[in-house]
Amino acid sequence: MRDLVIVGSGPAGLSAAVYAKRAMMDVVVLEKEAFSGGQIVNTEQVDNYLGLPGISGFDMGMKFREHADTFGVEFDDREVTAIEDHGGHKKVSLEDGSSIETKAVLIATGAKHRKLGVPGEEEFTGAGVSYCATCDGAFFRNKEVAVVGGGNIALEDALYLSKMCSRVHLIHRRDEFRGEKILGAQVLETENIEFHPFAQVTEIGGAPGKLELKVAVKTPTASDGQDDCDFTLPVAGVFIAIGTSPITDFLGDVVKLDAAGYVVSGETGQTSTPGIFAAGDVRTKAVRQVATAVGDGAAVIHYVEEYLNGLKGNI
Amino acid sequence: MRDLVIVGSGPAGLSAAVYAKRAMMDVVVLEKEAFSGGQIVNTEQVDNYLGLPGISGFDMGMKFREHADTFGVEFDDREVTAIEDHGGHKKVSLEDGSSIETKAVLIATGAKHRKLGVPGEEEFTGAGVSYCATCDGAFFRNKEVAVVGGGNIALEDALYLSKMCSRVHLIHRRDEFRGEKILGAQVLETENIEFHPFAQVTEIGGAPGKLELKVAVKTPTASDGQDDCDFTLPVAGVFIAIGTSPITDFLGDVVKLDAAGYVVSGETGQTSTPGIFAAGDVRTKAVRQVATAVGDGAAVIHYVEEYLNGLKGNI
Repeated sequence: MRDLVIVGSGPAGLSAAVYAKRAMMDVVVLEKEAFSGGQIVNTEQVDNYLGLPGISGFDMGMKFREHADTFGVEFDDREVTAIEDHGGHKKVSLEDGSSIETKAVLIATGAKHRKLGVPGEEEFTGAGVSYCATCDGAFFRNKEVAVVGGGNIALEDALYLSKMCSRVHLIHRRDEFRGEKILGAQVLETENIEFHPFAQVTEIGGAPGKLELKVAVKTPTASDGQDDCDFTLPVAGVFIAIGTSPITDFLGDVVKLDAAGYVVSGETGQTSTPGIFAAGDVRTKAVRQVATAVGDGAAVIHYVEEYLNGLKGNI
Repeated sequence: MRDLVIVGSGPAGLSAAVYAKRAMMDVVVLEKEAFSGGQIVNTEQVDNYLGLPGISGFDMGMKFREHADTFGVEFDDREVTAIEDHGGHKKVSLEDGSSIETKAVLIATGAKHRKLGVPGEEEFTGAGVSYCATCDGAFFRNKEVAVVGGGNIALEDALYLSKMCSRVHLIHRRDEFRGEKILGAQVLETENIEFHPFAQVTEIGGAPGKLELKVAVKTPTASDGQDDCDFTLPVAGVFIAIGTSPITDFLGDVVKLDAAGYVVSGETGQTSTPGIFAAGDVRTKAVRQVATAVGDGAAVIHYVEEYLNGLKGNI
């Protein structure tokens, strides 16, 4: 029986693994991807994780993995299909039909940014297409960019980018924002933000740093099925902010999830089920960054240890 | 008028400074010490901040500072004497009688580990004397160590160290622990933990890695003023766990503090006073590590920005 199974090998999972090994726990990290690092491996440059300025996401993932390796962290590349809670022990089922018995589980599977699902999106990811203005905005200083979306994140991204970019195009399917009114008002008042309502990006073309967005516009007054003023928008970058989705499908109802599928948990990482913890982007929180995920991973092991000590006390 | 004044240049303050600059805020960091990095500059080796394995605390502080410098963060070495809240603006008073007007303040002054105040303690800090078992325990693998204290942290430290050290001496002034019963019971049941009740370290001598602790023992039954069985304890390291104290004297009652003096705040960094935020060791939390401080610094700027956007909306 293991002390702890960590599901996911992004910044949260690896930070937790380092702390778990230092606490002498019998721990294994389940990593389904070919590389450690989680979402960051797709980011061209990460410049906001203190101590590692201007590093590529891929190199950061490698560094994080090497750090875990110095502690002899054990990795297993099988994918988790289910977690069962049996009180003092949990059963983690794997894709090959086998399973791991463990006293505690840490869910650190992260989240995925939702994709537009249009041609060119995949090709230009990390080369003009970004899903994180806070991460990548500074690389587009004095350039023209677009933001796709109408929620809080899209509005905040547009405002954030308007301070450093020459011009920000906000492309949204509707003429009203889902985000907070105050943010919407600020967006509309900001001189270098141009709002394109009833608009949808249908294709991303061009070349890295010189993208061409094909935008279809369909106002409600236009006749059915008729695009009334499609246009092509040349931009250095496009920020897609149509939401993220946590990777929690495999959890079923073993822990409480919020409406968007995130694991309900505060900074202690404790979930609705004793002995099952969550850290990083997969849990309910407002700021999802490498630094906050690494912090989560460090903090949660304190509570895992408290839990394991409690189990011992009951024997 | 500044957007933000950050008080303190440890991991939390510097991480926040990086995020603030990336958000184009007009920010200044007040750093009273000669070096950036906060408490870590006194740690011989930090091995649990993901991505920077086995780095000295001093080098880590330098790396963190260099990162902030790449964003042109402005530093000011004057000490803060008071913060006044005037709603939409705050006044930060400095030691030289001058002051800075700012829309928001981030308190990132950290905490100090409480000291025993005995001869040799200062001299051997970082060379056998440690205030953090989680940070430094792994350096004493298979060695004999002592822990001083009787609260939760001391008990947790003793248990933590018992897994990797050959023997742990727990030195406590009383024969009862202030910490949780379950922890106390576990300590007493653990074979390689030796409990020394009614004991006080009066001097730390010896040499780095070969310390000699002078321990005075005074049981209540012994005659007044008479030490009944003083002894000298040879250990590789001693962990002093008699509590920490936050650096919040200068705050007066501008924000709500808890009984121990920490700024009451959750992971958003929001305090009882709108526009005054807290990040890192200075705020109420259970785990105080470099990683959690850096995470705090990253997260809090999101809420500072939200606050500044709100101010703008009111004009």
